[in-house]
Amino acid sequence: MNLPSSVKVSEVVTRDGFQSEAQTIPTDQKVGLINKLSTTGLRRIEITSFVHPRFVPQLADAEEVYRRIERPTGVEFIALVPNLKGAERAVACGVKEINVVFSASEAHNRSNVRMSVAESLENVGKIVELAQEYGIKVNGALATAFGCPFEGAVTVQQVMRLVKEYLAMGVASVSFADTTGMANPKQVYDLVSRILDRWPDQEFSLHFHNTRGTGLANVVAGLQAGITSYDASLGGLGGCPFAPGAMGNICTEDLVHMLHEMGIKTGIDLDKLIAVARYLQELLGRPLPGQVMKAGKVSDLHPLLPS
Amino acid sequence: MNLPSSVKVSEVVTRDGFQSEAQTIPTDQKVGLINKLSTTGLRRIEITSFVHPRFVPQLADAEEVYRRIERPTGVEFIALVPNLKGAERAVACGVKEINVVFSASEAHNRSNVRMSVAESLENVGKIVELAQEYGIKVNGALATAFGCPFEGAVTVQQVMRLVKEYLAMGVASVSFADTTGMANPKQVYDLVSRILDRWPDQEFSLHFHNTRGTGLANVVAGLQAGITSYDASLGGLGGCPFAPGAMGNICTEDLVHMLHEMGIKTGIDLDKLIAVARYLQELLGRPLPGQVMKAGKVSDLHPLLPS
Repeated sequence: MNLPSSVKVSEVVTRDGFQSEAQTIPTDQKVGLINKLSTTGLRRIEITSFVHPRFVPQLADAEEVYRRIERPTGVEFIALVPNLKGAERAVACGVKEINVVFSASEAHNRSNVRMSVAESLENVGKIVELAQEYGIKVNGALATAFGCPFEGAVTVQQVMRLVKEYLAMGVASVSFADTTGMANPKQVYDLVSRILDRWPDQEFSLHFHNTRGTGLANVVAGLQAGITSYDASLGGLGGCPFAPGAMGNICTEDLVHMLHEMGIKTGIDLDKLIAVARYLQELLGRPLPGQVMKAGKVSDLHPLLPS
Repeated sequence: MNLPSSVKVSEVVTRDGFQSEAQTIPTDQKVGLINKLSTTGLRRIEITSFVHPRFVPQLADAEEVYRRIERPTGVEFIALVPNLKGAERAVACGVKEINVVFSASEAHNRSNVRMSVAESLENVGKIVELAQEYGIKVNGALATAFGCPFEGAVTVQQVMRLVKEYLAMGVASVSFADTTGMANPKQVYDLVSRILDRWPDQEFSLHFHNTRGTGLANVVAGLQAGITSYDASLGGLGGCPFAPGAMGNICTEDLVHMLHEMGIKTGIDLDKLIAVARYLQELLGRPLPGQVMKAGKVSDLHPLLPS
């Protein structure tokens, strides 16, 4: 089994996780959570989105969150930027790294941002230009890269064409998002292998949802194909609009636990991370999908009681 | 990615799943569920255990369940047999195939059956002998093959020694069980590869629990190493005594969904199987861990509403 020796984990809970929470989470709690996360050894945290508050009221406090968090050296704080207005807000805020996104499928892109893919490309192009003017690093995410809940299959050709567009803009990395959890391990391995054959020196990352239970299986396929950068959400928070009761993003602490068990380094203190996941579970007042915080680590042995 | 073209799935819900249910499930419902399962294309169902009713009161109706179920051609109905008394009951009942089990770790075996591994080997040897006398097929399961919740790591040497013991008895196949969900994909790949190097023509199977979220990832590792036979439990029913709130066995319909998405045949009608999983969920009156019955199949597309 061909595996990398280390992996970079990007935490997305306060953006991708929180954006689907119905109840408003106070800014203090967001800042507190991010501050806890920055002490775990995580080196990348997508903290919020500069989205219009009308669309995602939960993230209306993006500026305040960005300004108030502690910024220990070695941790990168990233914000999602959906449009030029959002990019201006990010610039004004002094953000150093942003993620941009559009969907590989026309139907999902229209449903999500009311634009065609071509229009989104133009939109994203403008954001990237502005960011570059201010020396802001940009990562390009491709939503529904493994399938669209409206259209079904997304072809490898379509994905490769859009990667080319992203790279032509000069983004630092491209991320493939399985937005509604449609990917399977074989598909991940096949797609990623083709991408890395074509662009062997380019940085890519993967963003999986565990909607149908294959989240960590898809990670293992990605690892085998050569990808060493993964998004995940603390406690597995983050839903799928079409699947009530289904899992959200892959769970950060479950991912880190699996990687460490496989001998793959992440630089993360798993005990600290699990403690923060349990804190989040208390904060939200309901059980989250994360398994390791319930089951304990494999290395947490149980006392043998006399029978 | 080296994958088999087809996989044999063994359903264990009415044994491994039901044995940890606190509330007694009426025999009628068990028989009804098994009858539904036999129409899905599943070809192997472990239906009950001839265990002493004092230890697992839930399965006290083993004889009645075995006698009352319909037996369509092409479906094998298997019973777990923990001791010689259970074997006699199985013989009296006319069972054609049994599973026997002991743990690879001393501490788990003592905790589970109050015997040393050596004593269990003797016990299992007697069961196998009796079964062979009556022409009953026997599969040998090795619990805690990927780790023990009391002792921690279980060595490859220990596992190989016990496989050798099983094969010397003349069992038809050996199953490696990750009883408390401690396995990781690298470990699965490494262990199974060594086993298949040593016994390339022997039938082996894998039994995973999703306690820490890696259940299907472990399956993919097993597939890559060459194993084509997997246990799973409808709806993901089946707990882990040390992990309240954690997942149980890997979920049959989620497994079948993933395999089909990967182009691997199972002979199972997934829609029928999902319908039975939903029926089980209603029967038990609580949400089960299975994801596909909540999220739908990848191929279940959603209508695009006008925005």
